Amino acid sequence: MIQAKKRVYLFEEGNKDMRDLLGGKGANLAEMTRIGLPVPPGFTITTEACREYLATGRLPEGLMDEVKEKMKVLEEKTGRKFGDPKNPLLVSVRSGAKFSMPGMMDTVLNLGLNDETVRGLAELTGDERFAYDAYRRFLSIFSDVVLSNLFTRPDGEKPNLDRSRFEEILERKKEERGAKYDIELSAEDLKEICEEYKKLIESELGRPFPEDPWEQLRLAIEAVFRSWNNKRAVDYRNFYGIPHDLGTAVNIQTMVFGNMGEDSGTGVAFTRNVATGEKEIYGEYLVNAQGEDVVAGIRTPMKISELKKRDPEIYKQFERVCEILERHYRDVQDIEFTVERGKLYILQCRAGKRTAKAAVKIAVDMAKEGLISKEEAIARVEPQQITQLLVPRFDPQEKEKAIREGRLLARGVNASPGAASGIAVFDADKAEELGRAGKRVILVRPETTPDDVHGMLASKGILTQRGGMTSHAAVVARGLGLPCVVGCEEIKVDVERRLFEVNGKIVREFDEISIDGDTGEVFAGAIPTLEPKLEEERELSELLRWADEIRRLGVWANADYPRDARRAVEFGAEGIGLCRTEHMFMETDRLPWVQKMIMAQTPEERKEALDHLLPLQRGDFEGIFEVMEGRPVVIRLIDPPLHEFLPNYDELLAEIFELREKARESEEAGRELSEKEKILSVVRSLKEANPMMGLRGCRLGILYPEIIEMQTRAIIEAACEVKRRGKPVRVKIMIPLVSHVNELRWIRERLESVARKVMEEQGMEVDYSFGTMIETPRAALTASEIAKVADFFSFGTNDLTQMVFGFSRDDAEGKVIMPYTKMGILEKNPFQTLDVEGVGRLVEEATRAGKAANPNLEVGICGEHGGDPESIRFFHKAGLDYVSCSPFRVPAARLAAAQAALAAGVEDRTK
Amino acid sequence: MIQAKKRVYLFEEGNKDMRDLLGGKGANLAEMTRIGLPVPPGFTITTEACREYLATGRLPEGLMDEVKEKMKVLEEKTGRKFGDPKNPLLVSVRSGAKFSMPGMMDTVLNLGLNDETVRGLAELTGDERFAYDAYRRFLSIFSDVVLSNLFTRPDGEKPNLDRSRFEEILERKKEERGAKYDIELSAEDLKEICEEYKKLIESELGRPFPEDPWEQLRLAIEAVFRSWNNKRAVDYRNFYGIPHDLGTAVNIQTMVFGNMGEDSGTGVAFTRNVATGEKEIYGEYLVNAQGEDVVAGIRTPMKISELKKRDPEIYKQFERVCEILERHYRDVQDIEFTVERGKLYILQCRAGKRTAKAAVKIAVDMAKEGLISKEEAIARVEPQQITQLLVPRFDPQEKEKAIREGRLLARGVNASPGAASGIAVFDADKAEELGRAGKRVILVRPETTPDDVHGMLASKGILTQRGGMTSHAAVVARGLGLPCVVGCEEIKVDVERRLFEVNGKIVREFDEISIDGDTGEVFAGAIPTLEPKLEEERELSELLRWADEIRRLGVWANADYPRDARRAVEFGAEGIGLCRTEHMFMETDRLPWVQKMIMAQTPEERKEALDHLLPLQRGDFEGIFEVMEGRPVVIRLIDPPLHEFLPNYDELLAEIFELREKARESEEAGRELSEKEKILSVVRSLKEANPMMGLRGCRLGILYPEIIEMQTRAIIEAACEVKRRGKPVRVKIMIPLVSHVNELRWIRERLESVARKVMEEQGMEVDYSFGTMIETPRAALTASEIAKVADFFSFGTNDLTQMVFGFSRDDAEGKVIMPYTKMGILEKNPFQTLDVEGVGRLVEEATRAGKAANPNLEVGICGEHGGDPESIRFFHKAGLDYVSCSPFRVPAARLAAAQAALAAGVEDRTK
Repeated sequence: MIQAKKRVYLFEEGNKDMRDLLGGKGANLAEMTRIGLPVPPGFTITTEACREYLATGRLPEGLMDEVKEKMKVLEEKTGRKFGDPKNPLLVSVRSGAKFSMPGMMDTVLNLGLNDETVRGLAELTGDERFAYDAYRRFLSIFSDVVLSNLFTRPDGEKPNLDRSRFEEILERKKEERGAKYDIELSAEDLKEICEEYKKLIESELGRPFPEDPWEQLRLAIEAVFRSWNNKRAVDYRNFYGIPHDLGTAVNIQTMVFGNMGEDSGTGVAFTRNVATGEKEIYGEYLVNAQGEDVVAGIRTPMKISELKKRDPEIYKQFERVCEILERHYRDVQDIEFTVERGKLYILQCRAGKRTAKAAVKIAVDMAKEGLISKEEAIARVEPQQITQLLVPRFDPQEKEKAIREGRLLARGVNASPGAASGIAVFDADKAEELGRAGKRVILVRPETTPDDVHGMLASKGILTQRGGMTSHAAVVARGLGLPCVVGCEEIKVDVERRLFEVNGKIVREFDEISIDGDTGEVFAGAIPTLEPKLEEERELSELLRWADEIRRLGVWANADYPRDARRAVEFGAEGIGLCRTEHMFMETDRLPWVQKMIMAQTPEERKEALDHLLPLQRGDFEGIFEVMEGRPVVIRLIDPPLHEFLPNYDELLAEIFELREKARESEEAGRELSEKEKILSVVRSLKEANPMMGLRGCRLGILYPEIIEMQTRAIIEAACEVKRRGKPVRVKIMIPLVSHVNELRWIRERLESVARKVMEEQGMEVDYSFGTMIETPRAALTASEIAKVADFFSFGTNDLTQMVFGFSRDDAEGKVIMPYTKMGILEKNPFQTLDVEGVGRLVEEATRAGKAANPNLEVGICGEHGGDPESIRFFHKAGLDYVSCSPFRVPAARLAAAQAALAAGVEDRTK
Repeated sequence: MIQAKKRVYLFEEGNKDMRDLLGGKGANLAEMTRIGLPVPPGFTITTEACREYLATGRLPEGLMDEVKEKMKVLEEKTGRKFGDPKNPLLVSVRSGAKFSMPGMMDTVLNLGLNDETVRGLAELTGDERFAYDAYRRFLSIFSDVVLSNLFTRPDGEKPNLDRSRFEEILERKKEERGAKYDIELSAEDLKEICEEYKKLIESELGRPFPEDPWEQLRLAIEAVFRSWNNKRAVDYRNFYGIPHDLGTAVNIQTMVFGNMGEDSGTGVAFTRNVATGEKEIYGEYLVNAQGEDVVAGIRTPMKISELKKRDPEIYKQFERVCEILERHYRDVQDIEFTVERGKLYILQCRAGKRTAKAAVKIAVDMAKEGLISKEEAIARVEPQQITQLLVPRFDPQEKEKAIREGRLLARGVNASPGAASGIAVFDADKAEELGRAGKRVILVRPETTPDDVHGMLASKGILTQRGGMTSHAAVVARGLGLPCVVGCEEIKVDVERRLFEVNGKIVREFDEISIDGDTGEVFAGAIPTLEPKLEEERELSELLRWADEIRRLGVWANADYPRDARRAVEFGAEGIGLCRTEHMFMETDRLPWVQKMIMAQTPEERKEALDHLLPLQRGDFEGIFEVMEGRPVVIRLIDPPLHEFLPNYDELLAEIFELREKARESEEAGRELSEKEKILSVVRSLKEANPMMGLRGCRLGILYPEIIEMQTRAIIEAACEVKRRGKPVRVKIMIPLVSHVNELRWIRERLESVARKVMEEQGMEVDYSFGTMIETPRAALTASEIAKVADFFSFGTNDLTQMVFGFSRDDAEGKVIMPYTKMGILEKNPFQTLDVEGVGRLVEEATRAGKAANPNLEVGICGEHGGDPESIRFFHKAGLDYVSCSPFRVPAARLAAAQAALAAGVEDRTK
């Protein structure tokens, strides 16, 4: 005969590496049993059995025989007997999947009780009231969780055995007795309640409550299996990306009772403080109670430290268990335990969830303690958590309160981390005015444009109705380290009426609102925030130093101003990977000259405007070079379409219509009208159907070479000036939007001659080079050609993602990608995490081809993905030299780069 | 001693395959000598020698020794002696590059004349006048072509020895003598003129005219070498894409004289009629003249047929030469010849340029005559020429006249072939009105939108200021077979003032203009056109039948209406590769319902609108299925962004501003205002920054599935209905703009269930399948995934080109690509001819990956490139199954596909 497949494992037969088969809870119960901790005896039915059940709709043949066999072992160990009216064995039946899904699936306690065994329990404990209370609870939970799911009523309808129906009976009884709390009910009352419960069950099911413990057990196993596919669990798995075909294990364990008097109790504790990371046991304990009482929140538990005073012996035992488990698992443990009449039982252990702050401190501490290696410490911290540490965030309790109060208004795209409260203001000028006057302002716009930057600078946070992760608002906010929520399509911003509407509510100008840039949430009213204290993050600095030793990828920052560059260096950036020159053009003192340049009718007019801009640009670059002290600075020549520097077409049109009316009466208005009409005609001639793919980037440089020649002159002059002051300079001039090698060749020839000419004039040489963005698919596809003319590549993965998908970041991110991710058509927003299959393939191939054609080619990335840990891992593998991201994301990127190096090392070793 | 490199070849030493070394003219002279035709003795200096000269700036060492050696051979053959005062040998020195560059480089005749030899020539010919006339001509040409280019004046200036200065002297002499024609001057007069010429030369050069014939020869050779790089020649090569590093050969040939009396003469003739293709010698002959007299156009030559009457003996000789040459070269020859005192000499032969009509007839005739194979006949005709045959074109003489009259106004993008004249009309409504009233209208717009289609339908041609090869105007015009010029940025269209300005000229509404869609030219006034007579193109039909036997690629057509489909079938289309459903939505009776559907506030409202559209769509499809009779029909589900179906935003805004004013006085206007404002708010909410990459294509289908469900229902119902009528139907439903396989999967599942449901309702099965456009780079990059869910791929190379380059067709084609091609940054407009390096790589890889993943996958292309011969060649190589193009391009595509198959066959054989 063939040996039947083993479907049931005693705890002593498993271990912690059997999560696939036994689920996380089962594997850990087995492990604890194995290392001799006081775990109540039990066994686990495998996930495989669950999958068989789900596939066939019935329990695998022979499963219940195996269960019975194992129950016999439990009976031997406990000296009790399942269904014995004198000395009944009671068990809990719990789900436990490979990945923790807390509270999503079903649990049954006290299984084995019936009209007979309840009396045995009463005798055994000498506490009739306790026994009937347990029975009452069992009846209601079993009905809700098991019976209502497995049976139909005689009329074919689903039975209504919701917990609320049992609550009604209980409440009625309490009323009859004039009782306020359950505890005031007597054993007799509870007995009557049990009877009524059973009547309800029989009337709903058309059959009596199953008194047979074995039937109870079989039904409970089936119910737990089925609960894998309840709606709650499916939603949870969808949300967290857990596969649907794993199934759950079932853990059957001898009941122990924390509610057997003052020497009993139950608790949950962490081996370290998971809020702060301090090395201290951290948790709660409730005397004379079962686990569900803690959850129900009726009585307030004591801090675990009080247990130390109250029962030093138990505390010491527990402390010892904590030590063993932490040392064994080499990580902070989250432990459930029960004390039954002075004896400690451990019911569950798992890795403890911790705050960002605690994660860092615990990892660093454990490494110093020698418990884990530095490499493990690095792997233990989520890079995103680090970014959270460096920005203000809402006090979690206050935020929870706001949600409870129904103040959560909407949810948009979480575009820049951090949290902020302030008054809603609907235009940039007013935001600037109020911000400068010391008000905390949240700038709310349909979307932002470069015209809004001055208002953004004075605000505490940005909220837009449209746009995505790489919209103007998002990019600028991240650069500034401002919390930002974009693409919040639920809110309808009405700038004219100075309000936004959201699901029937109106938020007016000066109303307080709060935004959470980590989650995309928008709240009515203020929520207190916790401010980070950078200088206090000693452990973080240490962790990042370790990371720097391990990572291969350089980490640079995107910074347009000396202020940003300084912050970037503080955060550990090794260079500037993207300095955008167009933001400089937007500043109030320059925009008029930029506009003059654009409107120029003759080369002379254009030259005059450029001559005015030259010293200003030179000054910008000097400032950045000073700060960077010889670190590389990649300066991107002008990129956006020219119309972005001119007034908005719609607004201009509206002004002109108004002026036309006024012009009938006022000569002044007539003059203004003719001026505006002139501008309109230029704006109209520059208007494009799809500006993103129009006259911008190097195309602009080729058709209006005077602009980039001026910029090159400004760059080289600035480099000479700073070098003259005794500071080293390394400048890399970057040409955007190249799609054909000839574009780069044409520009490079032209600008190199400008550079050489300036150096001759200045009588000195500076370290400069020319490179290009790889941001069109064609540039990536022809990288081997382009690499021959470039000293460096920088992947512009924002534009590359736009063009590879055909997604306009301004339009599609809110209107298409958000719904797509909700529908599961896209797993992730490709503007947040690099699309490895499509965009990634181009990045990988272009890097390889580029380096093959030009071995000195330096390859980096300056798109938003440069700060995304998952993407950084890909960039490491793809062989890039560095990533560049907003200054605030630099620390996270350093960590992610180290993790990428570690992961790649593991992969190499396992190859 | 090492054998020196041979730089000079006697004609008898070369042959026709030595074009690289001897140039086209030299190789043919050698070939003709080799096969025994009467070619005056001569030799050729190689292109290699020219390249050496151009690289070093001087004649290669030993070259003149070689030349002297060969000259000795000529002396022996002719019995004359170079520089002999009694019996002088005279030669012509002519350029001759690998690729013909007619008239671009220099030629010197009668070289070897000087004050002594001219007397020898006089004695030899017994015609003093003739000798001095030749001398006079030689002096002036040699000065102009050789001396002025090789020497500077003593003061360092360039000598002024232009032909005009010699003409002045001649004219003065004629005046003195009271002569009207050169011929009235005596030998004495000409002698005096020669003296004056020499004086002029000496005064300009500071040295006398070089009397030494060997010096003349050396200088002439240098001058011809140098003329390779004169501006004219460089421009020509740039225009025709001829490499600049080839150099020219120099042909030195014994002079023969057609101007030695009535038994002498000179002519140019083709072996067949190159205008009509008829098999008859076709050309001109001038008695008693040299070649340059024919060119000068002073005397009118006779038709070659007259020579037959005048000198049957010579004609017969020449006829024999034509026969030999045509048979030898197996193509029509363009022959220059001279008769000297009754003896025929052949001076040049080359393949004859011919009209489209002649090309087809000659190819077919020659194949039937057995002179060439069918395959060769196919290869001989340019596919573009065929398209020209099928559309009206300007009478070439009339067009030339218009150019001479200065009526050429501007040049835009040649978007749709054919020529048309008509009155300029500036809006679609008026164009429709006048067109229906029988006026010939040219619709002139800044650009067109779907709103203009009714006006385009009633026009004879379209002219737009903006847009490119794939702009709306271009695509629609090609579909309709209307001549169209787009992106004509030189013209400034002012719709309000109903005129356009072009380089200072004003063209007003109702002024006549003419456009040439083959060249992009725009003319003032009308130009008579030649209408094609399709039924007369018998040879063309025959040629295309041969092509069909050879090609592997299928040729399908893009057609939206039954009318187009019918035309496509007439032109030989084997299926519809793209039926766009959105054009149907634009028609006057449907647009209101489409707009209602878009503006719908509830699913019910949307459904009502869709219910109205369903029968209309069904009717469209029935019509097409009827026409196609079982040939495959690819129907693309709705693709453009919804706002395209709503009024234009700007216009709406303008209307609203006006209505606001009126609304103060009129209630009616108030109601209209509120209606328009409602529309505006929808238009605004649908407005996108880059609509090309926004909510369109399958994204629309996923977010508004009701629309594509309605379309699928209409398609399947129509298929059932037509099948019920007894006609076979093969329908292929195409999903546009897929970038992730999940999009296709989601839609396919949904629509297949609609299709199955309809077939159940109808109680019949129809042949249908689902496929997708490959038009985003990501779709191409992940083709192996997508192919698993698709029955067919159709490359949308328009959008693919847009996204691979990051070129918006609406913006970049006029503003960037046109200047780029002029600057040489791009060789070709990638919207016209597929970019093989970038877009092509994706097409090739996606085809391979798709077919590997799904062996039944059918792969085609429905972008504009489907009709471009060069691109078709690529598609053949890339392994596509078919190309689809506008009906008018189908014949050319059939031919191009056959040529592609032949070319690939040759490549395979030579591998």
